[in-house]
Amino acid sequence: MKIGMLGLGTVGGGVAKILASPSGRSPLLSKVELVRVGVRDITKTRKVDLSPEILTSELEKIVTDPEIDLVVEVMGGLEPARTLILKAIEHGKHIVTANKSLIAAYGSEIFALARDRGVCIAFEAAVGGGIPIIQSLQQSLGANKLKAITGIVNGTTNYILSQMTEGGATFDDALQEAMQKGFAEANPTADIEGIDASEKLAILTLVAFGLEVDCKTIFRKGISSISQRDIAYAKAMNYTIKLLANVNLDEDGSLRLNVQPHLVENAHPLAAINGVFNAIFLEGEPVGQLMLYGQGAGEGATASAVVSDILNIVGSSAAWQVIHKNLPARASVSQESKSHFYLRLLTDKSATAAGAIAWSLGDFNVAPMSVQQQITKDGALEIAIITESVFRSTLDNAISSIRGLPYVKEVANVMPILKI
Amino acid sequence: MKIGMLGLGTVGGGVAKILASPSGRSPLLSKVELVRVGVRDITKTRKVDLSPEILTSELEKIVTDPEIDLVVEVMGGLEPARTLILKAIEHGKHIVTANKSLIAAYGSEIFALARDRGVCIAFEAAVGGGIPIIQSLQQSLGANKLKAITGIVNGTTNYILSQMTEGGATFDDALQEAMQKGFAEANPTADIEGIDASEKLAILTLVAFGLEVDCKTIFRKGISSISQRDIAYAKAMNYTIKLLANVNLDEDGSLRLNVQPHLVENAHPLAAINGVFNAIFLEGEPVGQLMLYGQGAGEGATASAVVSDILNIVGSSAAWQVIHKNLPARASVSQESKSHFYLRLLTDKSATAAGAIAWSLGDFNVAPMSVQQQITKDGALEIAIITESVFRSTLDNAISSIRGLPYVKEVANVMPILKI
Repeated sequence: MKIGMLGLGTVGGGVAKILASPSGRSPLLSKVELVRVGVRDITKTRKVDLSPEILTSELEKIVTDPEIDLVVEVMGGLEPARTLILKAIEHGKHIVTANKSLIAAYGSEIFALARDRGVCIAFEAAVGGGIPIIQSLQQSLGANKLKAITGIVNGTTNYILSQMTEGGATFDDALQEAMQKGFAEANPTADIEGIDASEKLAILTLVAFGLEVDCKTIFRKGISSISQRDIAYAKAMNYTIKLLANVNLDEDGSLRLNVQPHLVENAHPLAAINGVFNAIFLEGEPVGQLMLYGQGAGEGATASAVVSDILNIVGSSAAWQVIHKNLPARASVSQESKSHFYLRLLTDKSATAAGAIAWSLGDFNVAPMSVQQQITKDGALEIAIITESVFRSTLDNAISSIRGLPYVKEVANVMPILKI
Repeated sequence: MKIGMLGLGTVGGGVAKILASPSGRSPLLSKVELVRVGVRDITKTRKVDLSPEILTSELEKIVTDPEIDLVVEVMGGLEPARTLILKAIEHGKHIVTANKSLIAAYGSEIFALARDRGVCIAFEAAVGGGIPIIQSLQQSLGANKLKAITGIVNGTTNYILSQMTEGGATFDDALQEAMQKGFAEANPTADIEGIDASEKLAILTLVAFGLEVDCKTIFRKGISSISQRDIAYAKAMNYTIKLLANVNLDEDGSLRLNVQPHLVENAHPLAAINGVFNAIFLEGEPVGQLMLYGQGAGEGATASAVVSDILNIVGSSAAWQVIHKNLPARASVSQESKSHFYLRLLTDKSATAAGAIAWSLGDFNVAPMSVQQQITKDGALEIAIITESVFRSTLDNAISSIRGLPYVKEVANVMPILKI
């Protein structure tokens, strides 16, 4: 099988290295030959040793070349990646891509054309780096009715939260450190604000439930509001704060999606995922709970997924396509999800404040399960509350009411809780 | 695709239930029909609702029936399972089996015949229940050179160790509790002594490295020697005791296999795997560290794996076979593995005992990294030592020498250490 690759950056370089050193890997690698690599500048010095005649700056020629059987897209971005991939499919080529934003935005257009032309689309690298989550959802868990997927799918934010939790760093310091270590981009917004995680959640939802979701519609909250105060309360109550991407299939057939920081019970396997690692936790019937853990980014992990995708296409003569589950007819996307919640409030110092707030919450049928309070350095009263399980909308109404109480200065943070 | 199933116990019942309720699962289930189920007693009352004409006690007729495309073997045991599977392959049928002992003992005979006849053999359920480890090794990680696989692959022993660690139970009490809860068999020897884990390790080694290993030759030590004293020292030094099945590919091309309790550093993801759960941790180049976690046994998890195997064969027209890796030519099995070790010794009360023992270890180039000591209730001196990384044989020589020292009463336990 002859491969043409679009892009020779970090991931593309990693792919070329694996293809050039087949010993000890799958014997199917002997059937794979990299014949063309499209780059912007063919004169640039490269880390990988490729014969110069393989390189070309004419990307369009790769996707239309009749000699090429499979196109690997590792250039990133929406355009020209989308146009090139669609053209490659029209020319009957299988596609392997690591392009998360592209699949999240144009997945169903690409899959539909691929189905029509009978070619395979593989995109294991788009979510969780080298973690085999896409193939597991498409194949190994095919017997299951999936109920929920909850993932730590962004290594940058997990690194920052780990540093804040273990090292006591402030958010700003942890972000600076992540940037210095190359774990965060120069513009970290897509990571910090959960945009990257919401794209990955849209892909997981498409693969697991067959439902296309516009990631702009996913409820999304980033991690910049998390302070050492929240970390301290979470620790004291035996939780760890994690940015989670979550999709639940409710009994009424609604899918509930959100990306937001959660307090994760320490006994939950996701609480132990630290640093830049990713993990995807899921529940299915009858498999029960399952978690896959590994490096969510970087040259090696991503290249592992890309090359394994190539080998899967080589090894299988059947078309490899996204399997759409038999979703209940009423399936719809909803952002309302029922959960225990953590609230942190600042009030004037008052012996009755906690009681009055609990009373106000109770008026909205939000029952406090646990209340902790302490005096802050500047003399305010800080109250941390964990509620019984309620809908977010119910809680939001209760919070609006609390905000109106005369002694309440600030509702400093609100996060849902993940129990085991 | 028409399915004949051998056995209708817990797992077989679970498989029948999934096949009878396809809604919300993979659409490929619509292509699968269970046409025959072989049982010992067709008059027995069953939990699953199957039309009576499907049941037969003539198992041989199932494996030779020209109408049947795929045989599911969930009867367990070596015979008649082996003979029936070989006959089914000779009659051109694909095989899905959950039979770990059979694959560990006769895997290569079965795979060779299957390759010869061009049929698929799938056995995801044989290791780690519903955890998609076999498919990941065969497919999703094909790009990698695997370096090591380390698994908690026996739920019974992990439950017992968890109860000893969290609840302070003795080994005997924890074992009794596991038996009462149905987590341990009436005869728990195969679990407790690591025999079950060594069969699973042989299968993982075959799939990951293409090397057939007689599981009787794997270095194996069970958990019955572990006392609350060992648990206490492990906790104090920030480790958790786990029964690990481990295979390492050394740089000299040797595979080192062992099943034995380890002290696992608490920061290692395997340290957090509690109760009856299983987890398989692996390291590959370039994917890095990866871990898969889930329920390692039980009707649901095992049936999930069996049915997903069926669907994978249905979905792929290519023969699905064990992929043998390009092992270095010198590949051989060795039990020698280099590691940090934990030793617990009992000596006569003496201010110089710890020093003298450290000196003796040093004579054999075993350097103590950490030493803790305390007086036991009956007045002996107990010394817990963590050594620098050494070969087991080096350590064994040092221990023999220590045993000869006049004040040493007992070398109470020796376990390797897993660091992150």
